[in-house]
Amino acid sequence: MFKAIVYVTLKESVLDPQGSAVRGTLHKLGFEDAKDIRVGKYLEVTVDAGTREKAEGRVTEMCEKLLANTVIEDYRIELMEV
Amino acid sequence: MFKAIVYVTLKESVLDPQGSAVRGTLHKLGFEDAKDIRVGKYLEVTVDAGTREKAEGRVTEMCEKLLANTVIEDYRIELMEV
Repeated sequence: MFKAIVYVTLKESVLDPQGSAVRGTLHKLGFEDAKDIRVGKYLEVTVDAGTREKAEGRVTEMCEKLLANTVIEDYRIELMEV
Repeated sequence: MFKAIVYVTLKESVLDPQGSAVRGTLHKLGFEDAKDIRVGKYLEVTVDAGTREKAEGRVTEMCEKLLANTVIEDYRIELMEV
């Protein structure tokens, strides 16, 4: 059994309206020192797989098919045995 | 200038309906090996601060006031100078 941590972030060139909204609200709350904000997703996926390679392959497939929109998002996977 | 990576996750004891929905969809797509899924937020915050301590203090305040709902969520901060 493996636990995969998946980070999904918008590509650098893609505008992040959610991040802009958070920055605007932070400024209204007095946090003018918050300069740039990007918002992404963080997922913990427990996978039933015999080997690290197999787990990594399956999680990559999940990212490509569902977890990330690869047109505008990048993803990064970290694996640990549990 | 510091860049803070903020991970916001639901506390262990809190149900994660978004994670359950993702797991359900993964199972429908043929990923029955995806056993448990928790969904959180990942934020990159650039802060204008002179020292690491000051940056950490400010980002902690931002988390307490806006970025995390501390009743049901935990947060973790990683800082790097940029």
